Amino acid sequence: MGHSGTLPVITAFEASPDEGQGLARDMRVRWALEEVGQPYDVRLVSFQAMKKPAHRALHPFGQIPTYEEGDLALFESGAIILHVAQRHAGLLPQDANARARAITWMFAALNTVEPPIVELEQAPYAEGDKPWHAQRMPLMEDRVRLRLDDLSARLGDAHWLDGAFSAGDLMMVMVLRRLEGTGIVEDYPNLAAYVARGQARPAYRRAFDAQRAVFTGKKAE
Amino acid sequence: MGHSGTLPVITAFEASPDEGQGLARDMRVRWALEEVGQPYDVRLVSFQAMKKPAHRALHPFGQIPTYEEGDLALFESGAIILHVAQRHAGLLPQDANARARAITWMFAALNTVEPPIVELEQAPYAEGDKPWHAQRMPLMEDRVRLRLDDLSARLGDAHWLDGAFSAGDLMMVMVLRRLEGTGIVEDYPNLAAYVARGQARPAYRRAFDAQRAVFTGKKAE
Repeated sequence: MGHSGTLPVITAFEASPDEGQGLARDMRVRWALEEVGQPYDVRLVSFQAMKKPAHRALHPFGQIPTYEEGDLALFESGAIILHVAQRHAGLLPQDANARARAITWMFAALNTVEPPIVELEQAPYAEGDKPWHAQRMPLMEDRVRLRLDDLSARLGDAHWLDGAFSAGDLMMVMVLRRLEGTGIVEDYPNLAAYVARGQARPAYRRAFDAQRAVFTGKKAE
Repeated sequence: MGHSGTLPVITAFEASPDEGQGLARDMRVRWALEEVGQPYDVRLVSFQAMKKPAHRALHPFGQIPTYEEGDLALFESGAIILHVAQRHAGLLPQDANARARAITWMFAALNTVEPPIVELEQAPYAEGDKPWHAQRMPLMEDRVRLRLDDLSARLGDAHWLDGAFSAGDLMMVMVLRRLEGTGIVEDYPNLAAYVARGQARPAYRRAFDAQRAVFTGKKAE
């Protein structure tokens, strides 16, 4: 928005379901782009438009974000961030082994830590009216805690998961943020401090303000 | 097993919970290594040993597979396969854009398609004794079908998801295989044919036989 020409273009919700809290997956991509100093344009899409053929040509599952750069079109926040991190300095270490380990944390965030968190998050919407809902919530919380026990043990008193801040931390911080309001992360002081460290980064703040401006209707720039 | 010296080493279940059906995540890594022609060693771990500090040093979440190569240690099947695919020809296209799209399908398999499949798969173990279990099963099946509707529409009558066979297809085929026995994939003839195409690859067969040999107690070689 406000940029012109050949900048990469991402998509985001026209009507933010979280009212600008920055929990939608475009926030992850915005943060990554801010970390590497790459300006970008945003195209907002409505829930209706997301399910139409034009958007599905970009995203087969009818979701956001997408990423367009010249004739390249990508979807999946993990893939987009890895692409950005591989093309620009700032999100992955130079050393090949350290780089592979940072990428491992991206996958761990998306395939090991996030799925039980999504289950917990979506249950009130999907099954909140079912008679079993109240009984299932503690079971789902236990599954999340199982992952957080291990994550907290591995992080220990380090600042980031493996050396310097990386795309793996970016992804993990964003995944943990989805637990806001549950009080679960607060039971792990080192994870709570880890999330706060992520949120204190200038690039995070710029990304957060930009996505929030979509909700408030103000220009971030 | 049976190799010596400097080969990469992966871990796999000592006692295969699926009795050699090749549904554990070491099968994905074995398949990738076979596709690129990289021999490997396997260290089998018991369920007890998986949760002990020595294994957790390799895998913070106490799971398999892990991957060790010289002084590099990785976990997460997605990260391991991406590492293998980036170091060897055979799993990712040479063209940079096509490469980024193939990696996108890896993330789509792991973060968009697999999570509802894991939910459906684990429910009988985790909640099979609960009064709500029978009523929840169709809800979970619907969530899987939502993803498969979109995936089937995108695949159409193509052989693979984006041009030639890639690590993205490898991962998606393995994720869809987790639905075996549910009859769901069979409702999408193009997806059933896609899975069968993956399983017909010589590298798949070699990997399958190797993991099956752990269960039957026979040497694959």
